Amino acid sequence: MTDIQSAYLPAIENELQRQISRLDIPHLHPFHDMLAYHMGWIGEGSGRSAQGKRIRPLLLLLSCAACGGDWNAALPAAASVELVHNFSLVHDDIQDNSATRRGRDTIWVKWGMPQGINAGDALFVISNLALLDLLSSFSAEQVITASIILHTSCLNLTEGQYLDLSYEKRSDLVLEEYWTMVTGKTAALISACCAIGSLLGGTDEITRDAYRNFGHYLGLAFQVQDDYLGIWGDSALTGKSTESDLVTGKISLPVLFGLNQKGAFAKRWLGGSISADEVLGLSNLLEAEGARLYSQNTADQMTDTALQFLRSADPPGDVGQELFDLANRLMGRRG
Amino acid sequence: MTDIQSAYLPAIENELQRQISRLDIPHLHPFHDMLAYHMGWIGEGSGRSAQGKRIRPLLLLLSCAACGGDWNAALPAAASVELVHNFSLVHDDIQDNSATRRGRDTIWVKWGMPQGINAGDALFVISNLALLDLLSSFSAEQVITASIILHTSCLNLTEGQYLDLSYEKRSDLVLEEYWTMVTGKTAALISACCAIGSLLGGTDEITRDAYRNFGHYLGLAFQVQDDYLGIWGDSALTGKSTESDLVTGKISLPVLFGLNQKGAFAKRWLGGSISADEVLGLSNLLEAEGARLYSQNTADQMTDTALQFLRSADPPGDVGQELFDLANRLMGRRG
Repeated sequence: MTDIQSAYLPAIENELQRQISRLDIPHLHPFHDMLAYHMGWIGEGSGRSAQGKRIRPLLLLLSCAACGGDWNAALPAAASVELVHNFSLVHDDIQDNSATRRGRDTIWVKWGMPQGINAGDALFVISNLALLDLLSSFSAEQVITASIILHTSCLNLTEGQYLDLSYEKRSDLVLEEYWTMVTGKTAALISACCAIGSLLGGTDEITRDAYRNFGHYLGLAFQVQDDYLGIWGDSALTGKSTESDLVTGKISLPVLFGLNQKGAFAKRWLGGSISADEVLGLSNLLEAEGARLYSQNTADQMTDTALQFLRSADPPGDVGQELFDLANRLMGRRG
Repeated sequence: MTDIQSAYLPAIENELQRQISRLDIPHLHPFHDMLAYHMGWIGEGSGRSAQGKRIRPLLLLLSCAACGGDWNAALPAAASVELVHNFSLVHDDIQDNSATRRGRDTIWVKWGMPQGINAGDALFVISNLALLDLLSSFSAEQVITASIILHTSCLNLTEGQYLDLSYEKRSDLVLEEYWTMVTGKTAALISACCAIGSLLGGTDEITRDAYRNFGHYLGLAFQVQDDYLGIWGDSALTGKSTESDLVTGKISLPVLFGLNQKGAFAKRWLGGSISADEVLGLSNLLEAEGARLYSQNTADQMTDTALQFLRSADPPGDVGQELFDLANRLMGRRG
């Protein structure tokens, strides 16, 4: 962990706990504990690995500091975007019928579907309230602008989710539809993090646009990379092949590329669900049809575009370097 | 319908449609239509009876006008509170496994549970965005204050929902726990409507407090009345007895009163689910144990307290009279 992360990450965790403590009232303790469990603070398997990487709040604070702002003052916004992300994970897990997240039982598995939906709703409400806490350091106008950016990205999130769920039933998807979906599902919130961070940093609109675009392309790159790893990543290929997106049936970029080739892969995919022992053969077939190279090239292209926008924003000093490093680390690149 | 309602209701509907039209984009039309269907505008059985009574936005606009404000300028807030209410209904129906709402298939029955959760999320996000539209007529500070009131009531909503869901498994509930639950589930949002309306009307904090309290007790009265009708209302007793709360197993005020008597009713209730042909006998038993009179008295008491607060707020003219009339009509009273 870098020095900057060593300062930011505990502060993020602290602010998240402060926000969730709105529910830390005697008659609501079990409710509070559901959210604290999901956030990785309590219960079986709690700790760093259960908390996720907190990438979104890090991007927000780094963008703020790089634009000359006080990252401490921006902490409520950092907590807010992480809570939005986690609200969407909680509902996602119910929608996808996923029993585990980060190696632990999901919230609905432990407390049932109705409480799971409500816990997700609560995370979302608290994200709204957290953002309004900015008022202690920023003007009402700035808080409103941040709210518009965040809520607009949340609407995009539900649009992306609608598309993702509706794609499951379709076999005629074209690549353009993939980009519309992941722009909503992944890129919108990451873009909002960078936009809100630079807004709170106090920079001009042109620079904010550069940060917003940096976040947008970084989000797309991140999703493509995730899709790539869902088929050719270690855990997808070896040992636990049930984790492969080929088995779960997820419509990811490599799969969509393969479907558009209308070759042997497409034929097999449309033929019904795929078992774990077909994974190795089928991922090789997909690679032979060009999907692996295409996905790698696409991830590289999106990353390069993101870094171009970041260079144009020209974030100074250690914090600026940290932003470049974080983007590269996210994409599995060294420096 | 009164003259005032004839002016307000179409304007509310128009603003709601304008807000939902954020999703009126070609590739999202089916998503937009899910929300338009739920709001009662399209599809089988659409029309006035499918739209609900729009009580919350009416209360908000009336409170605004009674405090000397321009109700037209407050329309985005009116749409916002109605969208919050509808988001909670959509998620409620999934959590309670309810197949019909206002005589029509619920959203999750028509489009599946995953899309249903997401449609509820979208209604909630649009409620947030709607509120920010107030900025065209009000100061950033006023919009922030309205946001804090609304989001706090939304947090109370999730708290009430948590309690409601957790009560299903308990047989040791006391009456105090009922009030905590319905304060969150019902009163908080209705109270927020009156508080936001009076805020946008431009009145002082003492008068706002009176409106807030009026809404709080009106909400409690409304819930107690709803609970009463759930057992002794026409549709609960005659013909479709499956609609009785005795059959659905809802922990309502009369049931809780009956349980606390630890008599014959409590014994039967704890003995397992109740069939439709037991409804008449069991509701008579509950009445004999005092639950009917207790519920009526409680509803009356809450209504009287609500009206006392409204009198102390002293809303002037036709709009003021309309507020009194609306409160009385809601409680089935004639003037």
